[in-house]
Parts: sequence; structure tokens; C-alpha cells
Amino acid sequence: MTITKIRAAIVGSTGYGGVELIRFLLEHPNVEITSVISSSSSGERVAAGYPHLNEIMTQNLDGIDIAQIAGNADVVFTATPSGVSSKLVPQLLDAGLKVIDLSGDFRLKSSSSYEQWYKKEAPQPEYLEQAVYGLSEIYGEEVARKTFIANPGCYPTATLLGLIPLLSAGWIDHRTIIIDAKSGVSGAGRGTSLLIHYSEMNENFKAYKVNRHQHIPEIEQTLSEALGEDVTVTFTTHLVPMTRGIMTTMYATLTGAYTEEDLIQLYRQYYEGRPFVRIRDAGGWPATKEVYGSNYCDIGFAVDQRTGRVTIISVIDNLVKGAAGQAIQNLNLMMGWDESVGLTRTPVYP
Amino acid sequence: MTITKIRAAIVGSTGYGGVELIRFLLEHPNVEITSVISSSSSGERVAAGYPHLNEIMTQNLDGIDIAQIAGNADVVFTATPSGVSSKLVPQLLDAGLKVIDLSGDFRLKSSSSYEQWYKKEAPQPEYLEQAVYGLSEIYGEEVARKTFIANPGCYPTATLLGLIPLLSAGWIDHRTIIIDAKSGVSGAGRGTSLLIHYSEMNENFKAYKVNRHQHIPEIEQTLSEALGEDVTVTFTTHLVPMTRGIMTTMYATLTGAYTEEDLIQLYRQYYEGRPFVRIRDAGGWPATKEVYGSNYCDIGFAVDQRTGRVTIISVIDNLVKGAAGQAIQNLNLMMGWDESVGLTRTPVYP
Amino acid sequence: MTITKIRAAIVGSTGYGGVELIRFLLEHPNVEITSVISSSSSGERVAAGYPHLNEIMTQNLDGIDIAQIAGNADVVFTATPSGVSSKLVPQLLDAGLKVIDLSGDFRLKSSSSYEQWYKKEAPQPEYLEQAVYGLSEIYGEEVARKTFIANPGCYPTATLLGLIPLLSAGWIDHRTIIIDAKSGVSGAGRGTSLLIHYSEMNENFKAYKVNRHQHIPEIEQTLSEALGEDVTVTFTTHLVPMTRGIMTTMYATLTGAYTEEDLIQLYRQYYEGRPFVRIRDAGGWPATKEVYGSNYCDIGFAVDQRTGRVTIISVIDNLVKGAAGQAIQNLNLMMGWDESVGLTRTPVYP
Amino acid sequence: MTITKIRAAIVGSTGYGGVELIRFLLEHPNVEITSVISSSSSGERVAAGYPHLNEIMTQNLDGIDIAQIAGNADVVFTATPSGVSSKLVPQLLDAGLKVIDLSGDFRLKSSSSYEQWYKKEAPQPEYLEQAVYGLSEIYGEEVARKTFIANPGCYPTATLLGLIPLLSAGWIDHRTIIIDAKSGVSGAGRGTSLLIHYSEMNENFKAYKVNRHQHIPEIEQTLSEALGEDVTVTFTTHLVPMTRGIMTTMYATLTGAYTEEDLIQLYRQYYEGRPFVRIRDAGGWPATKEVYGSNYCDIGFAVDQRTGRVTIISVIDNLVKGAAGQAIQNLNLMMGWDESVGLTRTPVYP
Repeated sequence: MTITKIRAAIVGSTGYGGVELIRFLLEHPNVEITSVISSSSSGERVAAGYPHLNEIMTQNLDGIDIAQIAGNADVVFTATPSGVSSKLVPQLLDAGLKVIDLSGDFRLKSSSSYEQWYKKEAPQPEYLEQAVYGLSEIYGEEVARKTFIANPGCYPTATLLGLIPLLSAGWIDHRTIIIDAKSGVSGAGRGTSLLIHYSEMNENFKAYKVNRHQHIPEIEQTLSEALGEDVTVTFTTHLVPMTRGIMTTMYATLTGAYTEEDLIQLYRQYYEGRPFVRIRDAGGWPATKEVYGSNYCDIGFAVDQRTGRVTIISVIDNLVKGAAGQAIQNLNLMMGWDESVGLTRTPVYP
Repeated sequence: MTITKIRAAIVGSTGYGGVELIRFLLEHPNVEITSVISSSSSGERVAAGYPHLNEIMTQNLDGIDIAQIAGNADVVFTATPSGVSSKLVPQLLDAGLKVIDLSGDFRLKSSSSYEQWYKKEAPQPEYLEQAVYGLSEIYGEEVARKTFIANPGCYPTATLLGLIPLLSAGWIDHRTIIIDAKSGVSGAGRGTSLLIHYSEMNENFKAYKVNRHQHIPEIEQTLSEALGEDVTVTFTTHLVPMTRGIMTTMYATLTGAYTEEDLIQLYRQYYEGRPFVRIRDAGGWPATKEVYGSNYCDIGFAVDQRTGRVTIISVIDNLVKGAAGQAIQNLNLMMGWDESVGLTRTPVYP
Repeated sequence: MTITKIRAAIVGSTGYGGVELIRFLLEHPNVEITSVISSSSSGERVAAGYPHLNEIMTQNLDGIDIAQIAGNADVVFTATPSGVSSKLVPQLLDAGLKVIDLSGDFRLKSSSSYEQWYKKEAPQPEYLEQAVYGLSEIYGEEVARKTFIANPGCYPTATLLGLIPLLSAGWIDHRTIIIDAKSGVSGAGRGTSLLIHYSEMNENFKAYKVNRHQHIPEIEQTLSEALGEDVTVTFTTHLVPMTRGIMTTMYATLTGAYTEEDLIQLYRQYYEGRPFVRIRDAGGWPATKEVYGSNYCDIGFAVDQRTGRVTIISVIDNLVKGAAGQAIQNLNLMMGWDESVGLTRTPVYP
Repeated sequence: MTITKIRAAIVGSTGYGGVELIRFLLEHPNVEITSVISSSSSGERVAAGYPHLNEIMTQNLDGIDIAQIAGNADVVFTATPSGVSSKLVPQLLDAGLKVIDLSGDFRLKSSSSYEQWYKKEAPQPEYLEQAVYGLSEIYGEEVARKTFIANPGCYPTATLLGLIPLLSAGWIDHRTIIIDAKSGVSGAGRGTSLLIHYSEMNENFKAYKVNRHQHIPEIEQTLSEALGEDVTVTFTTHLVPMTRGIMTTMYATLTGAYTEEDLIQLYRQYYEGRPFVRIRDAGGWPATKEVYGSNYCDIGFAVDQRTGRVTIISVIDNLVKGAAGQAIQNLNLMMGWDESVGLTRTPVYP
């Protein structure tokens, strides 16, 4: 049996999301990268800005040319910044391309919410409506029927996979959800700033955008949909002196006397057959390095009898399950392939 | 005016707490280190195990000899492990020495609580009663009247300084307190283990002892005393890939429509005249590196109108304000000196 | 065309070399891991000590049983410590197994040199003679004819690939070779010690074993063989506060007025057709992260007209090209497969 | 006895050199900081850009006004970039101020050499001639007679203190000197760039400016002066994933059969009475963390009988002995004070 490879273009290839897509797609048996696109560095060798790609990617970066992309590709990954995708994606969709967008532009169903949190003009509603929110384990069936995916943010991925089974089951009080999130620095991208200057960030731990992070509405929208009722959360983001990895430590009040074993069983059933969510045994909280470089989301629990609260710990690699990996997982689902094709990497440890 | 220096002995000088005491006491104008004691390395040069002390500390480590200590010292800092202090301190007190104990052995007023959380036999009650819990900004007046200090733990210091003003003012609901704590690795001490092996901890972020950390009863005891009512908290500890620094991110539901400015004013009044607590302006959350190597505790706030919760961020250097620095601050208070003598170090930045 | 997979056993699976072999072999299309062996943790789940392998490796660790190994495997990777391999490998060879040994026990052809540098009893000469030194790009043809490989050390791999073309060409004076080597901490293994305790190694840079590292005779033996004359080098090792990566910065006096372009051309010819050695363009010195997690060795040059010296910079991932990756490359060569099968991973960046 | 404090101004207070001067001068008993100057951020609070200085430095940044500086200060530290100092310092000198310049502008006696290596116009020769190169342990007597100090670079400080005694004694062949230098990232300053972006530099080790670093002529000039003959060296610079610390590993061929003990004795005599150079016992090579935050330079040796070479390892904190600390040491010498006044900090360990 021969599979004709589909042709993929990557727009925004000079960012970390783009370069991580390259790393995974290069070994995807069903995909051929036909164009690597950057508006800012068009004409340069891909490896010029990323020497680790020497002799691996020998082509040059292309500029953005919709007709050319439409001629060369079947699917486009847009790893472009918020505010750029909103303008680019409609043109790609109109040209008949499948699109997986890694920006935040098409995740929020409410334009006003988008404009409030992103401080940018929302995309046109007709395109917004076409998008499915690509949290693969939750919306996989819808992904399979669509051609335009709004790929989830890194924090929401770790958060939602950790909360939805409990919330859907009615085992936690949705008014009590507090999410304390910690991210490696690569989540802030490759642009330079004092915040992520090495000497400022090394041997340091920082909170930022407390209560103001643009991933909050995306989390609340999805939790509300899961529960069928409005959910508002407290969400804090911190930067950890490491490159990759997100941990979300989540707190909620249990609605009954559930044990850790109950929770473990609930989650294992919920994610049965889904290869990328791993539920830890009782007492075994996951560490971020245990998913490093891989598409896994590992989840562990602690139930505190004294307070009646559950603590849920969820970890991902922000650039993989939180970005490029999940994008490819969505491509797989969209194409009707096994969702793990090209993604079965063992975490890099140590 | 001449101050006769007091003579200090340090027991447990091969641990990080002990060596940090040395760093500060060496420049304390009113203190002379007369003996540096280690049961395990007695007879070796102090600098043998700590080459950074070459030509600075030229003496040898002494063994533990109560009579000798009593002859050479006025005050003893016991930077010994839990379970060791409980046996050693009574002998030092009986010998008429002032004692500042950095272990957890004398912090809990309830012997049963100690035995439950520490899994060790509690010290004799008569000695327990003599101890004052040395959270300098809160119990400073009592410290000034005592000769035996149970120096607080690192997590409790950051937590309590961040919570007590709000709790005492009745501005938060004590049943809603959640503390998400993150610590640099030096808090785990100098003993080797896989948990803090470099290759395991670098580029990693880990949760540990969730709901089981032995600092929980110390936090609850002090909050309960501050409120006059039993307080139970949710408390999670994480290891950050850095050496020094603690951040506690704390959540609670406000009992009224307090603004960030209200909180800032409350805290600035509460800590007025106390040089080591710095309250940040609105929007200015502290990072751990901003107190690195110093005795400061920096605190910032975010009030979320959407959820009615406050997020309090408190940072310290775990080895200074969380251990050796506060111990010296307590010595200063005990001796009637300005509490900042010998401690006015600017944080090391970057 | 169907390839019958060969069956591989890994002895020493609780060390970093062993676990890295697992990571690569799991995706090797021609290899099946049939046994994962640890003398110390036999009976435990593989994933118990390495939670990143949860749901990936579900079997238990086997104990060492030569007959059982011989029944289940065609090839054995011995990722055992020096002094253990010397006793184990002869039994495996006698049982008719192919062996790739990652320890230093069979690398030195001189037993007295082994005993001088390793302070251990040398293996029996008859087994020593069977071994080929598996520096794949240099001894690949001999590897292809053998069934027992002494896999090179991490430092020697980076060093020798960087020096041999120049030395063989007679372009450098062999009496002037100085090698300044820097390694990530994982090279020191998973055993705990104060040297690699996180708080001791973080934000620190250390020299160790200066002029005494056991990789020195291995480097000299191979250089001497390449030159046909005794070569003695100065070799210094340092630990870098990072987990993976080795850089060797090497100095030698040029025997003629060679330019950087001359050197680049020499090396590209020397390594033509070898996929894992990448020679940088002039001015483009490689950084360790640019080979992270991959089997590449990247090499760059600087010629100093002022001193007549060349500076050669060579980087590898110590656990891949410096251990597990090269071991698999040698298996590929031994089996007559393309040397890159199962090893074509793009470096993990950032 | 009362010492009237001298008044100090710091120009360039928003860089790491400037802020480190503040840290030390704040505790210098004989110095009062009267003005903290930044051309770019004039009018802002000092602590706005450096929150660790909250409540410690409450004043605002001044702009550059020569007359005002001359009215308020006795000595000026210019922690300004190369090319800025060359224009600013002459004005300060003309205004009668003592000047300690931390840039590279006045270190090279040859204007053509300056212009070749710095690619900038050299300062006017009349001012160049007034400057003394402030390597305190070597030129301390001249410093004591001058009012204008060109403070040495960080790499040259570690290098020269490690080489000069051996070179002056004639124990090494000056044609064989190779210097392999490694620096923490703070040496690159606070300006943002991709090179020192956290995600690019973390878990990475990089060579840069090989054979081209602007500190080369400064090293050669000083070694040539020490020897009385032209010295040319090979000098390589690397960035280490840590914030502070420099190690220079230096190689040279010995001219006789000197032992490590001979070298140790030579150096201890050479630096007798100088508190900031510490010579390690045989086998005890210093690590960078052992001088962290302090003004020490620690030096160790390895003599290799096999090659006849010595390996010299020298470590400093690049921001202290390599910049601000040595600047203050020079002020002390210039003022006739003990050279250690205000500088007797114990290294911060761990």
C-alpha cells in the first residue's frame, strides 16, 4: 500500500513553532514539506538562522505568495503571530487550502472577547465560524470533519486536558478553579526582550501577566462548553528558568469524597485509546522533563482530605503538545490517519 | 562607644544554612564567630569542604562538646537537621546559652502535630515552651524578650509575611487559602539524592510532597494564631531549576471590594519601619532574583474583579530570609540591636 | 522486501547510556528490543525509575542471565561501568552474541595502559584482540567485518573526528596538540555525588581530572595510529552547567599557510558521504545545542595568521554520538545497513 | 578618627557594571554615591529598571552634565560603552575629576591597535597617556600615584593574574601561550540580542569571536610589558550557560622541570600581602562559583610531566574582580586606603 504524501507549507518558519514543525514533519511518513516561508527572511537559507538544520534543510525560505502556496501545498501550517494570522488565513482558505493555525486569532468564538484580550481587530466572523478548536483529545471528531483548525495555546492544552474530565463528571465545583501555571521560556518566542534576556531570566523565577494572560478566555470558553455553564477561573502565569516545558498546578473543591484512585480511573477511562495522555499512578506527579521533546501530556493528582480540594498536575512540552506536535496530531485526525503518525517520539531524558 | 562583640558558635557548619550563617556573621560588626562545629567533619579545615572560604575561614571544624561551647560562646546557632536539634538544643539551653535553632524541631507547639508531620519523636515539652517562633516582623517583640528562638522555615516565612496582614485585617476568607510554592534547589540541602542530581533537575520543574510538606502545620499554626481561629490551607511545593529563591503564589477570596491600592497601603502600614519587607507598586510583581543573596521579602498583589480573588506573590532568598538571615535578624532583636545590623546587603543582581 | 528485525538486549538499562539506547532503538525499523537488563533493579518496571517511559516501555527489567540473553537476542549493548564489562562481555561473546560495549574496558589495546589509567584489572587479551574501536567514520570498514565493538568514549569521539583529517594530512605538528574539552553533566552518569549535586553545579563551571582523565590514552592511541607515530596530547576536562553536549576546542600549530577554506575543503572531502559529520562554513563555529539529542558531530575552524595556529571546534551530544547513537551507528555498519538507519533525528532546538 | 567620605558619581548606571558598582559602593565606608547617571533613562527612578534596588536607591537617574558632576563628585566611575568613554572621560578629567573608566577605550597604549580591534576612533593621545592600566595587583603602585584609571577587562584580569608570575620568572616559553576562556553571559551586558536570548543560550555552550576578541591586544600589551619582549597569544572565548563567572584555562610549555609545588610557592610569594588572589593547593582547581559575587581571583595549576606543559586555571566573577570590584580596589589604592576596604565580601555559595 502506498500513501501519496500530502504536501505541506509552513508559514512563520523562523519562529520556534515553525522550526519545531520542521523537526517533526521531516520524519512524518505521509507528509512532504514543500515550502518553508518567512516574510522577514525570504531568500535566505533556512539553516542560516538555525544552524542545527545544516544539511537537513537545504532549501531557502520562500516569501508569502498565496498562489504559489496553493500550487505547491495541500495543507498550510501558519505559525504566525496573532494579528498576522487573522489576515493571512482567510486568503489561504479562499485558495482552497487546508489550514492549521497556531496563533490565537481563531480560537475565540467571540470577537469582542478576542479584541478585549488581544487588543487587536478580530478576524471576519465567516472565517471564525469555519474554525474548529483543535484540542485533539476533546474535539478530535470535529477536527476529522474540518479543514481549518485553530490550534490551541500551550497553557490551555495543559490546563484543559487536566480539568475537563473532572469538570464534565461534575466532581469539582467550577467556581473554585484556580490554575497556577509555569512555563519554560521558549513559550515567549524568539524575539528578544529584557524579560527573556539570559542574565535576567537565569537563576530567576518570575510571575507575569497575572490575571491578564490572553489564554484565559480560551480556557474559560472551553471549560464552559464542557460544563454547559459559564466558568470563570483564576489563572496565573510564571516563567521558569528552563527552555521547554509547562506545568499547570490546578486546584478545585471536590463535590464528593472522591479518592485519588477514583480520579485516576476516571481519567484513564476518559482518555482510553488516546496515546498522548498518560495518567500517573497515585503519588506519582509528573515533572516537565518527563515529556521533553515529545507530544505527551502527563497528569497526576493529589486529593487533600483536610481541605476537600484536589490538586491536579499536568505537564506538556509547550512546543510539542502545546504547539507543533498537536498541530500535526490534528493534521493526522483531519486526514483520517492514526493520530500518532510521525509523533511517537520518546521524551528526551535526561 | 564600643560594643563588646558577642561570641557565636555555629553547629552544623557543613550544611548550606551553616555556611550562609558564616557568610553573614563574618561581616556582622557585633559578632565574633568563635567556633564552627560539625559532628561529621570535626578536625578538618572549614575550607576543605567549602573552597570559597579559603583564606577567609582558616580554622578547623570543632566537634560537639557542650562544655567547650558554653565556655567559648554566648549564642549558638544550631543549623542541624530535624531530630538532631531536638536532642542537642536542650543541652545548650541547660548550659546557659542563647540558642537560635534553624531546624523544624521547636516550631510546632503541639508535640503530636510534630510527630505526625516529622515522623520523629517530639522534643521535651519544657523546652518547647521556652521557644519563640522567630518570624521577626510578626513576633519581634517576643523574640526580644527570649533567649531561645525557633527560626521559621523558608516556605512559612514567604507565606506568612504575605498572608498575615490580609488575614488579620479580615479581608480574606480563611477557608479559601491556597498556597502554590516554588523553591530553588538549595532548600533541599547539601545531601546527595537523585531528586536533586544535576542532570535530573536541570531543565526540569517538579512538584513534590504535595499536601504532605512538613511546613504545612507551621503555616497553619501561625495563621490560626493570627486570626484567632483554626486555619487550614492547601499547600503545594515545587522545585525550580535554580539554586536560590522561593516564590509563594497565594490565592484567597476577598471579603470585600478591596483594590490593589488598598492592599498595598494595608501592607505598607503593617510593615512600616521594618526594613526587610518591601511592598511593590501595583502591577509590579517581584521575581526571586530581586532578593537574591539578601534578607528581603518582596510582596506584590493582583486583585481579580472577575473572580473576587486576590493573588499575592511573595519572594525571599530561602537561605537568607528563609534561614540564616532571619536567624541573625532574630539575634539582633534578641540583643536589642537594630534588626538590620550585618544584614544590609543589596541583592546580587544579575 | 521484508527485513527480519534483529533482537537486541540492553544491559545497564538504568544508566543514561542505556536509557538513550532505548530511546533510539524504539524507533529503529530493523531492531526489536527483547530484553532490558539491570543487575541492580531486576524485576522492577523499566518505567519505575524513568517515568518518561510510562506506557512506552511496559516490561520489567531482567536480571543478568547469559543463557537467557543468548536465547532472546542477537546483539547485546553493554552500557555497564568499566570493570563490569570486562567480566561480562567475554561471557556474551562466548555465547555467540554480537556485542557493542559502551564502557572503556575494551578500547585500549595495551593492558598496562588500561590498568594505569583505569586502576582496574584489564580484560583477558584474547577478548581485547577481538574488539574493534568503533569510531564509525574512521573505522567503519573494520566495524563492518566484526562482531564485537568497543564503542568510543564521548570526549574521544568529539576530539578524534576533529583532529584526524588534519593530522593524517600532515597539516599540523602533532607535538603541539592541546585539547580543551567541556562537557555537560550527564557524562558523569546517574550516580549521585557532590560534584554533580544541582546546587553545586548550577551556575558553576568546573575543571576536573586535569591531565588525568581516562579518555587520554584512548585519544592518544587513535591519533598515533592515524599518524603512524606516537602522539602525546594535553587534555583538560571541564563540567558545564548543562545536561547534554560536549565541545572540544583544540589547538595545534599548522605546518603550512593553510587557510580556513583549505581546512573546510579537506574535511568535507574526508567525510564525504558520511551523514553525521557536518563541517561549518568559515566563521561558523558550532554550538552544542545545535546537535542536541542527535547523532551529529559539527566541526568549525579558525586559523590565526598571527600565531600560525589552528583552532578546531567540535561538538557532539555526549549521550548520542558520544554513546548510544554511535553504538547504533556501529550496529548498522556491522549489519550492512545504511549507517543512518534509526538515527536521522533532527537536533532538538531550542 | 573620622574619614570624610569622598563623593562618587557613576555614569552608565543602567548597565550591569554600573549596578554592581552601586551594590559595592553602598557599603563602602569611605564613599558616598552622590549621583547616578544615565543618558538614556535620565529622570527615572534608579529602581524602576532594577527592582532589586527598591527602597535601597530611592533617587532618580541624572543626565550627563559635566559641571554638575564636577560640583557633586570627587571621583567618577564611567561604566559606559567603548566609543562613549573616549569622548566623555576627557571632559571629566578637564573638570578636575578623578576618573575610573570601565570601558576599553583607554587601556591600549597604541591608538592604531585600538582602532584595529575596536573599529572605533581612538581617544586623543594626551588623555591616553594620563591613564594607568588598573590591574591592581600588578600596577598598584602606579595606580596610587594617578587620578585616571583604565580599569582592565574581565578576560584580561583572569588571564594576566594567572600568567604574569610564571612569565616574569621565565618559567614558561612565551611563544607557547594558549588561553581558552569561558565566560558567564552577564559579560555581554544588558542589551538584548539573539546570542544571549534565554532559549538560545540555556543548555548551550558557544564559542564566539575566536581570535578576534578585543581583549586580545590588552592581554598581549600587558604580557609584553611584563616580559620586556613582544608576546603573541592564542585566545578563544566561549559563553557558558550561567550568569556570572569567568574561567581561563591557560597552557604553556615550561622552560624547566618545575613542579606544581614550585609554581604554588612562586605565586604565593608573588601575591604575598595581596588579599584578593588566592592560590590553591596542588590538585585543587578553582571553580567559578567559589568566587561568586566577590573580588577574589583564585588560581590553580596542573603540571603535565608527559608533555612538559603547565595548565593554569584562573577564575573570577566577571562583574566584580573583572569590573566593578577591581574599579573600587583601584579607588582604594588611589586614595591610599587599604585595597580591600568595602570589598571584603565572602563569595555567595551555593
